[in-house]
Parts: sequence; C-alpha cells; structure tokens
Amino acid sequence: MVTLAITDGQVLTPEFTVERADVLIDQDRGEILEIGPDLAGDADETLDAAESLVTPGFVNGHCHVAMTLLRGHADDKPLDAWLQEDIWPVEAELTAETVRAGTELGVLEMIKSGTTAFADMYFFVPTIADVVAEAGLRARLGHGVISVAKDDEAAREDAREGLSVAEEIDGMGDGRISSAFMPHSLTTVDGEYLEEFVPQAREIGVPIHYHANETEDEVTPIVEEHGVRPLAYAAEKGMLESEDFVAHGVHVEESEIGLLAEAGTGVIHCPASNMKLASGMAPVERMREAGITVGIGTDGAASNNDLSMLDEARDAAMIGKLAADDASAVPAGAVVEMMTDGSAEAVGFESGRLKAGAPADLAVIDLEKPHLTPRNDLVSHLAYAAAAADVRHTVCDGQVLMRDREVRTLDELAVRERATEETEKLLARAGQ
Amino acid sequence: MVTLAITDGQVLTPEFTVERADVLIDQDRGEILEIGPDLAGDADETLDAAESLVTPGFVNGHCHVAMTLLRGHADDKPLDAWLQEDIWPVEAELTAETVRAGTELGVLEMIKSGTTAFADMYFFVPTIADVVAEAGLRARLGHGVISVAKDDEAAREDAREGLSVAEEIDGMGDGRISSAFMPHSLTTVDGEYLEEFVPQAREIGVPIHYHANETEDEVTPIVEEHGVRPLAYAAEKGMLESEDFVAHGVHVEESEIGLLAEAGTGVIHCPASNMKLASGMAPVERMREAGITVGIGTDGAASNNDLSMLDEARDAAMIGKLAADDASAVPAGAVVEMMTDGSAEAVGFESGRLKAGAPADLAVIDLEKPHLTPRNDLVSHLAYAAAAADVRHTVCDGQVLMRDREVRTLDELAVRERATEETEKLLARAGQ
Repeated sequence: MVTLAITDGQVLTPEFTVERADVLIDQDRGEILEIGPDLAGDADETLDAAESLVTPGFVNGHCHVAMTLLRGHADDKPLDAWLQEDIWPVEAELTAETVRAGTELGVLEMIKSGTTAFADMYFFVPTIADVVAEAGLRARLGHGVISVAKDDEAAREDAREGLSVAEEIDGMGDGRISSAFMPHSLTTVDGEYLEEFVPQAREIGVPIHYHANETEDEVTPIVEEHGVRPLAYAAEKGMLESEDFVAHGVHVEESEIGLLAEAGTGVIHCPASNMKLASGMAPVERMREAGITVGIGTDGAASNNDLSMLDEARDAAMIGKLAADDASAVPAGAVVEMMTDGSAEAVGFESGRLKAGAPADLAVIDLEKPHLTPRNDLVSHLAYAAAAADVRHTVCDGQVLMRDREVRTLDELAVRERATEETEKLLARAGQ
Repeated sequence: MVTLAITDGQVLTPEFTVERADVLIDQDRGEILEIGPDLAGDADETLDAAESLVTPGFVNGHCHVAMTLLRGHADDKPLDAWLQEDIWPVEAELTAETVRAGTELGVLEMIKSGTTAFADMYFFVPTIADVVAEAGLRARLGHGVISVAKDDEAAREDAREGLSVAEEIDGMGDGRISSAFMPHSLTTVDGEYLEEFVPQAREIGVPIHYHANETEDEVTPIVEEHGVRPLAYAAEKGMLESEDFVAHGVHVEESEIGLLAEAGTGVIHCPASNMKLASGMAPVERMREAGITVGIGTDGAASNNDLSMLDEARDAAMIGKLAADDASAVPAGAVVEMMTDGSAEAVGFESGRLKAGAPADLAVIDLEKPHLTPRNDLVSHLAYAAAAADVRHTVCDGQVLMRDREVRTLDELAVRERATEETEKLLARAGQ
C-alpha cells in the first residue's frame, strides 16, 4: 500500500469544527485511512500542513469548463443578448482542439484554487474527459443537448450524442469520471425530445442535469405553454429524481421548493453568474430550510469571471443574506457545507467530507497570510476571506495534483500559451 | 533627482484603455514624470512590469482599519445586534496598542493587495497616523465622533477630540496624511452637536465624512423626528459640501440623489459590507447617471472580511447589476474607475489616475496566471478576475512599499504575531 500523509494541519471535520490532526491516505484506493494525531510514520509521501487548514476539496457543481477561453470576451450584457450575440456565434466555431485548450486552462485554474471535483455541461465531451482523466480531477460530464433552432433530425442526433457520450465516458480516469444526460434547459429542448430521451437516460442509469429557473424569461414561456411552473413541468417529464440536479434555481416558487425537497433533487446555486447576468437572487436560505440539498457552482468563466470556489462561497453568503433580507441567513458554516458536501451530494460524488473511508479529495490552505490573521474563526475565514492563491496543496483520489502551488499533472506555462493561441484562432474564426 | 522606473508594463490610462509603456517617477516629489516607451534609462531603481498590468493604486474610500483584529470574530448577524453585542463591547476595551496592532495588520493587507490610499474613521487616530506614516500609504483619517449614550460633557469632549485630532495629524507623513471631521452618523450624533461642531470643522478647513443611509433603521428616525430625508437633514446641518463624502448611501431616494449631485458630495459604496449585513443594495448606476462621484470602500474587516479592493470592485459590479436589474449596469470600466479615480475624487486625493504630474501611486499586477488567461480584456480582468495575490509591486508617493510581494515598510511576520497577541488580549478584556 502506497500512503500519503498530510501532517500538522488544522483539519475541517464533517461537523465543520476544526481539529489539529494528521490525515493518512491510502493512495492505491484513493481513500482516507485515518485522521488523528501522529499518523505520518513512514508514509511514502508527506505534505506539510503546518499553519494550514485542511479542507475537503471544493466541489464545483455546475460549470462549462472550456468557456475559460471566453473570460472577459463579452461582459456586462443581459443573458439573452450575451448568448445570442457573443457566446453562441463563438461556440459555433468550437473544435475539439479549442475545447481541449479551454478545458486544460479551466482544470488548471481549479486545481490551483483547491477544487477537486466538478460537474460540467459542454461540447466535445470525450475531449474534456481525456483532459480531466490526465489532470486527475473527479468530474461528472455531459453533452449539452439543445433542440431549438434545429430540425428534427439534428435535434435527435444531438440528443443521441448526449446519451452515447454519457455511456462512452462513464468510468474513465480510473472511475473518477462519471456522466449525466444534460438537456440544456427546459426551454431550449422541446418536450417531445425530453419525453423520448429522458427514459433512455434512465435505462443507461445516468442522472439528468439541466439549467432550471435561471431567469424569468425561462419561466414565463413554460407557464404560458404548459400551464405549470417549470419544475412541475420537469417532474412531468421525469426529470426530477433524487439523483438529478439542476443549476441555478433562481426563480423558484414555494410549490417548486416543495417538489425539489420531496424528490431529493439537488440545486446548484451559481451566485456570481446570477449577479453578473442580473438573473436574480436564488432563495438559498429558504431552499435549505426546506431540506433541499444545495451546492455551489461557478458556471462558466465568461459569466463569473473565474473558477474559484472560494470567491463563489463568499458570493453565496453575501447574496444569500440579501435575498433573505437577513444578515444571519446563509452563514459561513452553510456556505462551507454547500461548497463541499452540498455540491458533492447534489452531483453524486462520495467526496465532500474528511473522514476515514471517504475519497481522499482535499485542499490545504495556508493560514500565514495577513488577510487570514488573526485566526478568530477558521470556518469564517474559509467562507469570507480565503482566496484561491492561499491553496498550498490539492489532492484528489489520493493523488497529489498540486504541491506547494506546483501543479504536477499539467504544464502550467504550456497550458496558458495554448489557451491564448486557441482563443485567438477561435475568435478569428467567429469574426469577433 | 532620485528616479524609479516601472518597465515594460501594460499601463492603464486615465481613459481606461491599456498601453504598453514605461512609467518614470520622480521619487523626491513623489510624482509621475512621464509615461511612454523606453524611459528606464538610468533610473535609480527599476521595477519589472513585463507581462503585468500597471494600474493606479486602489483607493479604499471608507474603512475602519484596526477592525482587522475582529475579522471573523462575529459573523452573520444583523447590523444592530452585531454592533451592540459583539463590536461595541469589544471596542470599549481598545487601547492605543490594540489599535496600533490592528492598523499595522490592515495597512499590511492593503499594501499586499495594491491599495495605496484610504479614508478611515476610528479611534486612537494619532496612533493610526503614526503607523500609516511609517508604512508609507496615503490616508485621510478621522476620529469617529459619537454622542448617543453619552452625557453632554462626554459628547462635547468626543466632538472636540474629533476636531483636535483632525488638526493634529493633518500633513503628517510628508503630507501623505490628511484629516476630516467624522461624526459617526446622523443618528449616532445628536443635531445640537452637529450644529456646534460642523462649523468649527469648516473653520479648520477639513471635510466632513460620515455614515449615511446605510440601513432603513438609520433613515426612519430622521424622517420621523425631523420630517425630512437624512441627506436633506445633513444639508440643513451644513454637512453636504463638495469636499465632504458619505459612506454607504444604500437607502437614498431620488430627492437625495439630486442633493448629492448638486452639492458635489461623493458617495463611498461599500458593497461587501452592505451584502454581509443585509443592509441593502445602493443604487450605484442611478447615482453615477446623476453625476455623483461614487467611490468604493471595504468598510471594516469585520463586515467584509478582507480589505482587498479587487474583491470589492467585483462585488460592486455584481450588486450594481442586481440593484439596477440590468446586466449592463455598473460595467467593468465603471468599477475600475470607482476603485481608483472615483474614490480619490470623493475623498480628496490627487491620485487615482496615471499621468505625468500625478502622484506616483500605483500597483503592478502579474498577468501570468491561469485565471487572467487569455487576455481578452484587461479592464475586465481587473474588475472581475484579478485577486489580491496577483499584485507584484505597490508604489505610493513614489516610494516602493512592496517589491515582488515583499513589503519593505513593515515586518510581515512581526505584524501578524502582534495582531494575534493583541486580539487575544482584547477579547479577554471584553470577556468574549
């Protein structure tokens, strides 16, 4: 058995308290063996965590990872105009090489900010899976299925690709990669295709993930056409099961909160994207009170504009209080739970908590920083003050992906250069 | 003449475009001599800015710097309970030594995050001025005057201290330190004291700075007692002149926006604090449209929980869009303007723009980071993606305060240790 020891850290427990301990990891199984005092012994590798906080690796519950290439390309526009004028015309010019470059950049950024697992909806998904497999992260990936503005054959072809991709990539990366069937949203995929393909996704045994209730513009047409709120419509289409998870959930009414809670369907809250696109404020405190599993996601970098879950956690606490009109809503402990265990449970990962037997997915955060001094409350610091650059080490599935800010599985300089080159080519192809 | 050259950077111009140039600085006068190609020549010191963005130093328009010691001490509580239960009882136990330690920590954090100037309201202000003078920042400082819960003699004594401190510290630190008369707010200082002491502040020639319209609870009593909105009341008391500046301005009505615009009184927007305390969303887009000078401030670290203006700029764009219900509101260029020139103009500093003859206050930001790749738009990156740790060098008044992340004017380790010790003593004294 090859072992890894994380030594002398302050370890965040599943109860969100902090205890001084070592973490011993079985690298063969990718699992935590034990958490306690003096476990370093003769571990094969040791990561120093003195004066540092050891947390579960962050779980980014909703992303479009290759969109890192469009970071800052078109800001400060409403969702509709932004998609139609700036994003979709560029995405029409994507190639597997573009997506490879954008995914490499995105997973590099994730590793450097302590994210160890993510859920992603995009295109050229086998390429994304290849990059993730090599980079060492955990991911649930799917092809974004869209039927609007397509003829019937193209729409079916796209949905079939959503299914075949889900089957193809499932289990890649030594089992770190799983999949889902991902209809883009309830308004961008017509009901007939949902009725035909959702049952097929159930047959192959993958969950369903989609954008839901992100903007009012997404809600109104469903209410007008079908006479029910979007999540009631989703339930009718069989898309509200306990293994499913939806992104955004901004404009959800009480009846829909009831449906989500009853079904056990998780919601991935994307606060930065919801603010930047002025989509609105999700009722996170209310959803948590109702017993819904709420996770956190960055959404794509074009509407964020970074992939740091630490930024996102702070945003979630901030907007959560505004939405509830209550400064005690969505407290520090809640966002730390949401960015680790909450996202993991919603997406269907076993990670998100540090305990014996759990996947060895963790991040080590350097506390020797002015902005993390004094150490009045480390959970508060994680929620409100810690930043991506404070992450020292990142470990996923027992493997060291970053040690002392040096990423082992990707060549940082080469990744940045390829991303720059591929962005230039992409924007040139799109005439932007 | 001793000179400093910043070489090979991408320089942010006063028009918020970016040009490749060197910046040559006269260190004796603390001014920018010239911006253009090939200026390094035989400068006495050179700071490399290759692959970096050279921006005006950030101006934190409203802070309580020594509150860094209370970072994470009591989160997730409404403003009133938070002040009365957690903050004021602790602040009652402050000593000059506590404030010195907290100020050192705060200015260390500011220098490390590219802030070169700030406005601050707190206690033991001569001690704060000493620290700022040594640390090399630019600041406008004042004593927070409060009359509520004090007898008449104590209230007058406090106001007199506000005036005497303003006179005492003005011009310290080779002129980098200026002062203001700072009544805490319109509800915590009774009208009779405003009537008596505001004219005296005018006589000694300092501006007035105070919290205004931060919460509904601050607005209602003024409307009930005086029959006018708070900023009309402030105008009656002579506190709405062009050199004055108010913090927050969350709950401002159209009539008050008119008063601010007409008077030329600046508003310091504190988005993180307003979100964390669920105070509300300031109408930043509307205030800017009306011609009000809007700056950005972090407020104290206890309600933020850090002093990074880069976080604050992102927050300002995010909440500004939500408040306006418009994704095109408060765009990247606006927040970059607000965190530099806007704050400087509101507070009354000459800094905030990089041009010949301006104070040599600037920050150099390393662009060779995954989260700043690709470089589609550097103004966007500054607003949305850059983080405190990306700041390489910080220069104020022509002096290098930080070079390659090494702070020259403070001993970082000693400052962190003293802050930790003084916090322990402070909380013990307060029984918390």
